[in-house]
Amino acid sequence: MLSLGIDIGGTAVKAGVVDDEYRIVKKMSMKTPFGDSEKLFGGIAKMAAKLADGEPIGTIGVTVPGSVSSDGGILDAWNIGLRNIPVKRIIEASVKADRVVVKNDADAAGDAELAIGSLKGVNTGLLITLGTGVGGCLILNGAVFHGGLNRGTELGHAMIDRGGIKCGCGHHGCIETLCSATALKRLAEIAVDEGRGMIAQKAAAGEKADAKLLIDCAKAGDKFASRLFEEYVDSLADAIASFVNVFDPEVIALGGGVSEAGDFLLDPLRRKVPGKCFFGSCGSIVKAAAGNDAGVIGSVI
Amino acid sequence: MLSLGIDIGGTAVKAGVVDDEYRIVKKMSMKTPFGDSEKLFGGIAKMAAKLADGEPIGTIGVTVPGSVSSDGGILDAWNIGLRNIPVKRIIEASVKADRVVVKNDADAAGDAELAIGSLKGVNTGLLITLGTGVGGCLILNGAVFHGGLNRGTELGHAMIDRGGIKCGCGHHGCIETLCSATALKRLAEIAVDEGRGMIAQKAAAGEKADAKLLIDCAKAGDKFASRLFEEYVDSLADAIASFVNVFDPEVIALGGGVSEAGDFLLDPLRRKVPGKCFFGSCGSIVKAAAGNDAGVIGSVI
Repeated sequence: MLSLGIDIGGTAVKAGVVDDEYRIVKKMSMKTPFGDSEKLFGGIAKMAAKLADGEPIGTIGVTVPGSVSSDGGILDAWNIGLRNIPVKRIIEASVKADRVVVKNDADAAGDAELAIGSLKGVNTGLLITLGTGVGGCLILNGAVFHGGLNRGTELGHAMIDRGGIKCGCGHHGCIETLCSATALKRLAEIAVDEGRGMIAQKAAAGEKADAKLLIDCAKAGDKFASRLFEEYVDSLADAIASFVNVFDPEVIALGGGVSEAGDFLLDPLRRKVPGKCFFGSCGSIVKAAAGNDAGVIGSVI
Repeated sequence: MLSLGIDIGGTAVKAGVVDDEYRIVKKMSMKTPFGDSEKLFGGIAKMAAKLADGEPIGTIGVTVPGSVSSDGGILDAWNIGLRNIPVKRIIEASVKADRVVVKNDADAAGDAELAIGSLKGVNTGLLITLGTGVGGCLILNGAVFHGGLNRGTELGHAMIDRGGIKCGCGHHGCIETLCSATALKRLAEIAVDEGRGMIAQKAAAGEKADAKLLIDCAKAGDKFASRLFEEYVDSLADAIASFVNVFDPEVIALGGGVSEAGDFLLDPLRRKVPGKCFFGSCGSIVKAAAGNDAGVIGSVI
């Protein structure tokens, strides 16, 4: 019986056949339509049929970038323009499978990290995904914690900077405002606005002033970019230390686009975070390992 | 067999005989000596002997205001001037009992709330103690969570106000800096310094400018005191909402001296917190029920 994983992201919907060892053995994708549930789930049904190619489907898992109700619906996924969509029911009606699982993207990533990634065997862990926003999940008792009221957790919306920058959620000073790829982009735009250093030069030559450009310029040794990156790392170190004081996880795994910076990001964090923690030390800080496939793999677990 | 609970606080050591229904049936206390481990544990042994009065002791529990090592020692309890004290070993050598338990004060309070208080039957809960500092504990799976590395949790040192007021722990902007009784005292001192309202009048008449005076004056309807209290409540509401976004507890219980304000504190929190949460709602906000006896009762659980 096949396991099909579907990862609905902000820009693309990835789909894949996942084998028993959590490897993706066949995959395809489509562009995510915005605010169009029919087109979205119509496309998913077509991809599922193509991937299954006549074979019976055991599990089909769907990962959504938003909050999920206990009966497998989307409560709110503002970045794909959908609210109150009964995903599980729609999939059950359009794809023949023994089992339909719908989960939040951060939870799926957590399940993937637990199964094959950086959180394998971990009892208390923290996964922070640094993308357009900041998401992630807590691992408690060796499993993804879904919150006391079963609505998931919103790590990126812990407050760290009271009265600070306004967040997409409507509040101010959430971790997301300082630690997301969007926060890095905002810093890159400062360099452009002020015409400073390599970021401004490259932007003038047509490159996009975003997180990647800032990190590339900092890696290349540009002074202003390095200063901006250090500012970002310091915010992120504060956020991680704050979580450490509350959970004290064995492992802190960083995922999402920004984590692709690898040791260039992890090394300064490893230097900075312990000194910011109440106990003067913390668990290990590592890169999430399941990478871009985490959503597809984690959806079927 | 007797159960003896000992609660070492910053100013007093309370001791009591706790019955099977977690009631204190006999009690006594002594002043806490500062930085004098011999005097402290000598006094505790004497109280234990007096309370037991010849009866055999089953459990003796000791609650300490600081971090506890896995072998029952004090790691650091700066407010009683003690570090690296093998409490369990000292008690075992000085009091004859079947079982010696040493625990952090916040954990003891959590155990008491779970057993007889506001967190009875709760699976995911949060206890925040608003005293000289801010402590508390997380209830996960119906039990006190000791942190992933078993060093306890330090809820009061989650960061909420990056770059804000310096905390006793050496860092800046911890929840403790804005939500403790000490934070209220700092606000009361502003009223005194600026000579404003009832707080300044009462302080001039010899009353102590502290959390209690500020709350009393706000309760009495004094305008400036009310404004200061509202500022405090707003900070505390931010802190609670931030925890809600991460845990989403069923119940949020407030303990410690400030919680004695009762509904005068709880009602505005119940109005404010939901709107500050990602999901627009939260679990119930209640007063911790075990009160001043929580440390003695919780120590033997």
